[in-house]
Amino acid sequence: MRWSDMDAYGHVNNVVYLTYLEEARVDMLFVHEPTHRAGRLASGVVVARHEIDYKRPIVFRPEPLRIETWVSRIGNASFTLGHEVVDDTPDGKRLLYARAASVLVPYDTAEDRPRRVTQEERAVLEQFLDPVPV
Amino acid sequence: MRWSDMDAYGHVNNVVYLTYLEEARVDMLFVHEPTHRAGRLASGVVVARHEIDYKRPIVFRPEPLRIETWVSRIGNASFTLGHEVVDDTPDGKRLLYARAASVLVPYDTAEDRPRRVTQEERAVLEQFLDPVPV
Amino acid sequence: MRWSDMDAYGHVNNVVYLTYLEEARVDMLFVHEPTHRAGRLASGVVVARHEIDYKRPIVFRPEPLRIETWVSRIGNASFTLGHEVVDDTPDGKRLLYARAASVLVPYDTAEDRPRRVTQEERAVLEQFLDPVPV
Amino acid sequence: MRWSDMDAYGHVNNVVYLTYLEEARVDMLFVHEPTHRAGRLASGVVVARHEIDYKRPIVFRPEPLRIETWVSRIGNASFTLGHEVVDDTPDGKRLLYARAASVLVPYDTAEDRPRRVTQEERAVLEQFLDPVPV
Repeated sequence: MRWSDMDAYGHVNNVVYLTYLEEARVDMLFVHEPTHRAGRLASGVVVARHEIDYKRPIVFRPEPLRIETWVSRIGNASFTLGHEVVDDTPDGKRLLYARAASVLVPYDTAEDRPRRVTQEERAVLEQFLDPVPV
Repeated sequence: MRWSDMDAYGHVNNVVYLTYLEEARVDMLFVHEPTHRAGRLASGVVVARHEIDYKRPIVFRPEPLRIETWVSRIGNASFTLGHEVVDDTPDGKRLLYARAASVLVPYDTAEDRPRRVTQEERAVLEQFLDPVPV
Repeated sequence: MRWSDMDAYGHVNNVVYLTYLEEARVDMLFVHEPTHRAGRLASGVVVARHEIDYKRPIVFRPEPLRIETWVSRIGNASFTLGHEVVDDTPDGKRLLYARAASVLVPYDTAEDRPRRVTQEERAVLEQFLDPVPV
Repeated sequence: MRWSDMDAYGHVNNVVYLTYLEEARVDMLFVHEPTHRAGRLASGVVVARHEIDYKRPIVFRPEPLRIETWVSRIGNASFTLGHEVVDDTPDGKRLLYARAASVLVPYDTAEDRPRRVTQEERAVLEQFLDPVPV
């Protein structure tokens, strides 16, 4: 989190939560993609849809929050990521700040148009698959 | 629009669209509320949910886009705004960049908790009511 | 201004002032450059230095502030813009929110390196020249 | 860094560097202040001036940059932080991305006005003092 993520209400602005999801998505596709077989996904994915439910306000603190991210659907020309913004209390309870889903479309940046999910990408995405509706 | 709304793809970042919706919402509730009977709405509304479908990329230009905003639902303890981010082409066609819905909850900032929509606020919101599902 | 330009202190965050300067700079170089002879400046200028003095806090309001922008120095390989963020009070006084200077370097984006100010660009910049030290 | 810190040039936008400095400042005053004797500094400091020289473009990557931060001056009613945004190359060289100075003014948020640096705060700031001009 950044201190300036907070708005005049003293809470993290609702729009910034989507930046947090973007960070988690970039981290998953760019950084942790285990075999780099999904390299083209990392370099070209377009957001087609977001939906997000806000459950609790977030106040800045130095310690990071946790963004749990998984693949909830794999289609022919798009896939969906599920997200939960969460935290653990000192006594071990799980606090839910927001729950979200993002529909992503693989994009051919050279041709400047959407493209289909390849077999190789599907195999990578299936490793993160957890078909729980958000 | 601001030039820096664009990200490394050279398009307005998908998260920034929600800031555009916020500007339209603030403008409607703070500025254009015709009789100021909904003053408490302006000073205290919390976003409970967003959903947004992206239809076209936006590239920075000096001329503003248009954010059409209406009330699509009025409940007891929340209401929903519909939004379309649009533009007119030189030959009079309407271009749709995004369509969105935001669920808003009146908030009692003194008591720090959600509250119900008052009769007076309902009357104001009804002036903007267009119960088209987004 | 955007409502979310404000931070948890309820004032426009000090960093956002520099975004305001960027808007003024883009507006001057992209939009108002009178004869389009400085087109390459518009498409490629890199910021080498900013200095900014904050004079008053800014609170969001629907009406825009004014960013006065002029050219304070033209060198061989850089030039300096002066800026004042100002407002007029109802009784005609001038309020100064911030004063700033930005050193800009023409950039050859194809070659990916700084370049000199051309004679034509110098002529355009001289129209905005007001060699007042900021 | 966040991926969206980059602008349409594919580099971190120059304005965002100041947000990086803010993060370092908040981290130093809120988090690492060793004895919490400077607690009032953490909760109330206003930026009076920034100056920043940009030395190299920054491209997003998952690994953090380092923001070296020190106290370069302690006055009666303000103090100055020096900053360098740096990185180490694999072969041990130090890369400088930007050098900056920020003048900060202790602020009495209850009274809504600037105040003097207390003796206790001065003692804390002196621990970070390195009077190198930036």
